[in-house]
Amino acid sequence: MGFTFQINDDVHFEHNQQLLAKSTANRPQLHHQTLTPTRLVELVKDAHGLEGWGVKQLAPISDLSNYQLKRDEKLILDFGNHQVGRFSMDIASVGSPMDAPLYVKLKFAEMPAELARKSEDYTGWLSRSWIQEEYVHLDTLPAKLSLPRRYSFRYVEITVIDTSPKWQAVFTNPTVITDSSADLATVAVPKLEDQQLTKIYQVGLKTLEDCMQDVFEDGPKRDRRLWIGDLRLQALADYATFKNTDLIKRCLYLFGAMPADDGRIPANVFTQPTETPDDTFLFDYSLFFVSILADYEAFNTDQMVLDDLYAIAKRQMDLALTKVDDRGALQLDEDYPVFVDWSNDFDKATAGQAILIYTLKQFITLAKMTHDTEIEQYKAQLAKLEDFAKTTLFDPEAGLFVSGPDREINVASQVWMTLAHVLDSSATRELMTKTVQQLFPIKGIATPYMYHHVTEALFEAGLTDEAVKLMKAYWGKMIDLGADTYWEAFDPDKPDYSPYGSPILNSYCHAWSCTPVYLIEKYLV
Amino acid sequence: MGFTFQINDDVHFEHNQQLLAKSTANRPQLHHQTLTPTRLVELVKDAHGLEGWGVKQLAPISDLSNYQLKRDEKLILDFGNHQVGRFSMDIASVGSPMDAPLYVKLKFAEMPAELARKSEDYTGWLSRSWIQEEYVHLDTLPAKLSLPRRYSFRYVEITVIDTSPKWQAVFTNPTVITDSSADLATVAVPKLEDQQLTKIYQVGLKTLEDCMQDVFEDGPKRDRRLWIGDLRLQALADYATFKNTDLIKRCLYLFGAMPADDGRIPANVFTQPTETPDDTFLFDYSLFFVSILADYEAFNTDQMVLDDLYAIAKRQMDLALTKVDDRGALQLDEDYPVFVDWSNDFDKATAGQAILIYTLKQFITLAKMTHDTEIEQYKAQLAKLEDFAKTTLFDPEAGLFVSGPDREINVASQVWMTLAHVLDSSATRELMTKTVQQLFPIKGIATPYMYHHVTEALFEAGLTDEAVKLMKAYWGKMIDLGADTYWEAFDPDKPDYSPYGSPILNSYCHAWSCTPVYLIEKYLV
Repeated sequence: MGFTFQINDDVHFEHNQQLLAKSTANRPQLHHQTLTPTRLVELVKDAHGLEGWGVKQLAPISDLSNYQLKRDEKLILDFGNHQVGRFSMDIASVGSPMDAPLYVKLKFAEMPAELARKSEDYTGWLSRSWIQEEYVHLDTLPAKLSLPRRYSFRYVEITVIDTSPKWQAVFTNPTVITDSSADLATVAVPKLEDQQLTKIYQVGLKTLEDCMQDVFEDGPKRDRRLWIGDLRLQALADYATFKNTDLIKRCLYLFGAMPADDGRIPANVFTQPTETPDDTFLFDYSLFFVSILADYEAFNTDQMVLDDLYAIAKRQMDLALTKVDDRGALQLDEDYPVFVDWSNDFDKATAGQAILIYTLKQFITLAKMTHDTEIEQYKAQLAKLEDFAKTTLFDPEAGLFVSGPDREINVASQVWMTLAHVLDSSATRELMTKTVQQLFPIKGIATPYMYHHVTEALFEAGLTDEAVKLMKAYWGKMIDLGADTYWEAFDPDKPDYSPYGSPILNSYCHAWSCTPVYLIEKYLV
Repeated sequence: MGFTFQINDDVHFEHNQQLLAKSTANRPQLHHQTLTPTRLVELVKDAHGLEGWGVKQLAPISDLSNYQLKRDEKLILDFGNHQVGRFSMDIASVGSPMDAPLYVKLKFAEMPAELARKSEDYTGWLSRSWIQEEYVHLDTLPAKLSLPRRYSFRYVEITVIDTSPKWQAVFTNPTVITDSSADLATVAVPKLEDQQLTKIYQVGLKTLEDCMQDVFEDGPKRDRRLWIGDLRLQALADYATFKNTDLIKRCLYLFGAMPADDGRIPANVFTQPTETPDDTFLFDYSLFFVSILADYEAFNTDQMVLDDLYAIAKRQMDLALTKVDDRGALQLDEDYPVFVDWSNDFDKATAGQAILIYTLKQFITLAKMTHDTEIEQYKAQLAKLEDFAKTTLFDPEAGLFVSGPDREINVASQVWMTLAHVLDSSATRELMTKTVQQLFPIKGIATPYMYHHVTEALFEAGLTDEAVKLMKAYWGKMIDLGADTYWEAFDPDKPDYSPYGSPILNSYCHAWSCTPVYLIEKYLV
């Protein structure tokens, strides 16, 4: 996830050791595969590829050892699909004795477009340290180069910065040992007649697989950590595929163990070198702790988890409800903003109200399960929130929800009110039909995260054809542009859009975009 | 040493396992010191420093942990003197949790001028891989960064390429663990009244110490290997100081074990990953095997070494003598050039003839020790060579030796004829007096290697004052420009001269420049 940075380094956090221990007890075992590249490729201009770049075969991989590289020469290995893991290769010298160190640069890329940009040119606000490249000196050859870090890539560009005029470098046995806590053997891939949907499912499954590590990561290239907004969607996708509930449990405990002193659950946590909550807080993300717990219990009733985490979920709801005024209107707070989507070009008040309703309904389910004596108070709050939504936020003339003081009509409001089922079925269908008529094609949305919610809203409203059409137009278009896994950011009107000013920082395997596996399984199988 | 590259990768070499085993048996134990920087410095313009650069103190080293670095910020550590060893430091993050890897660049420099140049701008012919810099990603902090390679440096520039906007990097405990096979405790430093000579001696001793590693290296920064021309001078300096004869023995065996199939000893050998001779051959360098063996036996009679290596020394002499014509004139061969000095702007024939005479005299001493029955043939050859030198190469009118078809008069010819003692003492004194009168100040010589031979020739000719004057003007001037150790290349008329187009590739601690310790000990103590 990318977002305007919050710096709240004065906030203190709880570290509940009992819950952290349960998180640790559910650490997954990583599965490893040893894979080799399929071919050598060249970067070529390709009008159909992302940013106008693609690759074409230079030679079969069996030719690799024939290439003797000297200063400024390079090769690109193609591993044939997206991989997450550790890279190694053997390097030897040929010619005269090696009279200088070998200096070599390795650049790992998920997409060809990353290779077309120079790292030095990147001046964006996100850290340059995310660019997947290494400079390595080897004083003696032959040697096995085993890079200790994990990379997320399909392509490895090897550039010889220098040998010496007397000898050349030869590379053999390039290998990746992959990492994932997902086990493909557990997945019953649905048989779909539609070839495009089959492909959309497969790429989504690969995306989820490569983001399933020691935790559910948002992106194995960047930011490589557990965000609650991504976790909610990953968990839904996981129930539909790998059914690795231990990993979800681990992640729930991680968040549950480390709220801020004021009770709010942070938007993300780090697990290396130790469990550390980030100092970023988002109103909807904190609430999604409720949602994830409810989804978990719905899939897999687990009394211990419910007992351990219910009070924490309740605390999120209680904190959120303090932001609701007497009329039942959510009053958003600048210090605790609602995310909804990356874009800040639309009013988020109504979407925020809908998310609160959505999660409050899930909370009431949990309250029932725990026989919470205060359940009626929450039901009353829900009624008030829904009433305000229906009477004040819904514009009967337009047949759409409005948002903010300027009564803005935007997609997010309709989508989240649909997902929250604030209106009845037929009114919801009407709402989304109007949304399609009046607000489609969607403009200004660049995240699969928001596109997921739009697509799910169409399904929930019964507009299955529209939902499939959107899924094909959005996720299908990423595949057309060369995606092996789905991207963190994608605006189909501006395929070259990067929130960071360069594809070199983009994450092209990002958890929140994996949801076609869930949507297809839930609504089409 | 730098030189026009030879590529002879079709040459085959012997690997005499018995001699290699003796070389291995004499591998030195390395001594280690753990040292810390003395201060933080800034790079400043300094008209008195090499290339116009120097440093000034920014803060005492105790302030280091107060510096919190973010993107593009840097610090320079000053270790107070030249060091050869492995670097480590502790790195922590401060601020918000570390939400991106740390990307840091470390650049190791022997002289401030190296820090003033950008590595990317270097386009010279020597390998860029010699630039002492590393790019490192650290995924989690705190961490200890222990770089595995050995560097040669006084300054360490730490540049943070990026953290993230949310946190900064803090560096503590920078440390070098030094490597040297020299043991300073064994040296009886002469007490000299002259302060400048004392300093010249000290810097020479440090230069030799830092070049004494697993073998005598030519330079611990570059090329980090055993060259026979450097070894001859290092051995002479070692007899005058550390008296580590085992290391000399090890190096003699290394060369002796690996001649080419035609018998020639190569100009240098590698010892990592295994003992490997380089495919470079220089006429005078092969002959210096004789010289080094004779010097070794003169210092320390060692029958086993003599028995093992005499035949190999004899083979060098026999090969060299095949290049002598009936008149007693050395006929130089393009495939087996004589080095004498880097410069190719002077005729080397007469200097080559003198080097052959010089080494043949040493060979005859060895032949006597081994009771070689063929000794008379060598004496006859010597007479012929000397006769040609005196009758044909010496110009009685000029009072100087001439060289080549154009009867060029150059410094190198006079110097090597002096060192070879082709003329008697008084004629030699006259020769060098004339040399000083007519050919000084020296022009166009940029190596301490050649300056050593000029200085020694002055001493040998009895011109002690001139020798001391030259030593002060040359080695003293390096110290004035900021040298902690002596340089591979230095032209006092053009202090900024680099044979590689950039100081970034220069070796500022180079074995062949350490000889003031030998000259002072032999001629002034």
